[in-house]
Amino acid sequence: MVVSMREGEIISLFMKHFERHSLGDDAGFIKLNNSWLLVTSDMLVWKTDVPDFMTPEDAGRKVVTMNVSDIAAMGGRPMAFFFSLAVPGDVSEDILRGIARGINEGSKVYKLKIVSGDTNEADDIIIDGGSLGIGKRLLLRSNAKPGDLVCVTGDLGRPLTALLLWMRGEKIPREIEEKARNPRARVEEGVKLSSLANSAIDISDGLSKELWEIANASNVRIIIEEERLPISDSVKEIVSDPVKVALASGEEFELLFTIPREKVEELDIDFKIIGRVEGGNGVYIKRGRKIEELEVLGWEHLAGGIDVEL
Amino acid sequence: MVVSMREGEIISLFMKHFERHSLGDDAGFIKLNNSWLLVTSDMLVWKTDVPDFMTPEDAGRKVVTMNVSDIAAMGGRPMAFFFSLAVPGDVSEDILRGIARGINEGSKVYKLKIVSGDTNEADDIIIDGGSLGIGKRLLLRSNAKPGDLVCVTGDLGRPLTALLLWMRGEKIPREIEEKARNPRARVEEGVKLSSLANSAIDISDGLSKELWEIANASNVRIIIEEERLPISDSVKEIVSDPVKVALASGEEFELLFTIPREKVEELDIDFKIIGRVEGGNGVYIKRGRKIEELEVLGWEHLAGGIDVEL
Repeated sequence: MVVSMREGEIISLFMKHFERHSLGDDAGFIKLNNSWLLVTSDMLVWKTDVPDFMTPEDAGRKVVTMNVSDIAAMGGRPMAFFFSLAVPGDVSEDILRGIARGINEGSKVYKLKIVSGDTNEADDIIIDGGSLGIGKRLLLRSNAKPGDLVCVTGDLGRPLTALLLWMRGEKIPREIEEKARNPRARVEEGVKLSSLANSAIDISDGLSKELWEIANASNVRIIIEEERLPISDSVKEIVSDPVKVALASGEEFELLFTIPREKVEELDIDFKIIGRVEGGNGVYIKRGRKIEELEVLGWEHLAGGIDVEL
Repeated sequence: MVVSMREGEIISLFMKHFERHSLGDDAGFIKLNNSWLLVTSDMLVWKTDVPDFMTPEDAGRKVVTMNVSDIAAMGGRPMAFFFSLAVPGDVSEDILRGIARGINEGSKVYKLKIVSGDTNEADDIIIDGGSLGIGKRLLLRSNAKPGDLVCVTGDLGRPLTALLLWMRGEKIPREIEEKARNPRARVEEGVKLSSLANSAIDISDGLSKELWEIANASNVRIIIEEERLPISDSVKEIVSDPVKVALASGEEFELLFTIPREKVEELDIDFKIIGRVEGGNGVYIKRGRKIEELEVLGWEHLAGGIDVEL
């Protein structure tokens, strides 16, 4: 396949042409009275985003989760889900029923009302979901401050490990498959973080990429420590380079955030401190005594896939 | 192609599985303080929705218009645009630049901020747009009342005539092409209607289908008069059955609304009265002295296209 433009280049091209925009964060935001309205859309393309260890139910639920996660990353509370669906003319009723069940499950898990739907015809199944939320104080990528601690919720590595095992035709252990098939957005964590943290992003493209997003948007230097990464135990048992997998693994839907040191004790959620924010630029990783610049690992659309092995 | 399910059946299947939804109108709505938040998403699939008399700019602008039109049909004021884009790996930069320019133009025409974007890879170009709006009083499909007058903005027939000429490889006259390439959503009209009308819908699938949507949702009988239809003069010159074309022509983005008789004089917009609402059920058309049930004409996704000829 001729790859003419990478995802990042396409985004730049669009941003260059838009005269009135506020793109660049996990969700869009508009001030309304004393609140922030949040809105996001995130598309699932069957061919690239639904490996066959996922059921149609998993896919439907995931579309809800990935959109809700973008609202959570802004510190918002999701209120509604909406979607546009495209299907081939010969799509089976079983697949459609599965997708519908999955979306319904997702809407119940996150207590959302499904408010809008649109149906179309295309060659592949495409579900573009969206979520509407509301927040009091926004968590932007661009607000990390020197002195902040860098933290992450949950554990890392399972979704990518599942994908790598699947690509090799190997059996996926249940605990690893669980997060790959049924990840959960960190809604309550996001709401609690909204009054305390300075910046946040959800881990949809891999920790290393999200760290660079925050460092670049905030114009700060981030240093993380290799041994502090919350790598899933089951991942450690299977992969040869668990750190690399944890840094590259996307669709984790964990929250990566930075928070002033003095506010950490007020934070009533499970999280792990993995590093700190300093003045300067770039993202660095401490491996034993060595500090080196962190490479961006993980998935980029239109860039030819994944650069990590089992 | 094996068509296993029509669009209407797919929508029914989804609605049957959703436990908490408010689907069934042009846009979704959520009460927020004393206002209604409106949100909608509407997808453009290049292969089926972009005939080659349209440029990428036209397509980008149209995605904005079709979403804004759904907000207008609810009586809301659109505030923001967002989108998810899928493109093949070998998409040309020219096409992307055109789409970006078109979206930018649309955002300026309707004074919208572009607040969120998402990029993906797929076999065809797919742009799923969305709009967020706000309203004080909603115009629902389900609120038409016996005694209301049935009205429509603008003129009808040009978009379908353009498509039919294009399918026959014939030259499309400029005035007809204009509305097919650059339709406009009736935003100011919708806002003015919101305080006076009882029900509204935008004409995206053809007048006949939209009339049935209102009659069924409101549980009323609608009678329109053939000679009152605001058929475009340039359509009358070209097509053999202009009434049929006007009833079937979609993507007009005109507003079809019903309004109490006594409120009509307060309405400060251009519109045409085409019929009335009565007690009962169904949609009927008066042709000279005969009244007959109105057939649903026009476009349905996954149903094999258009049932009208030049």
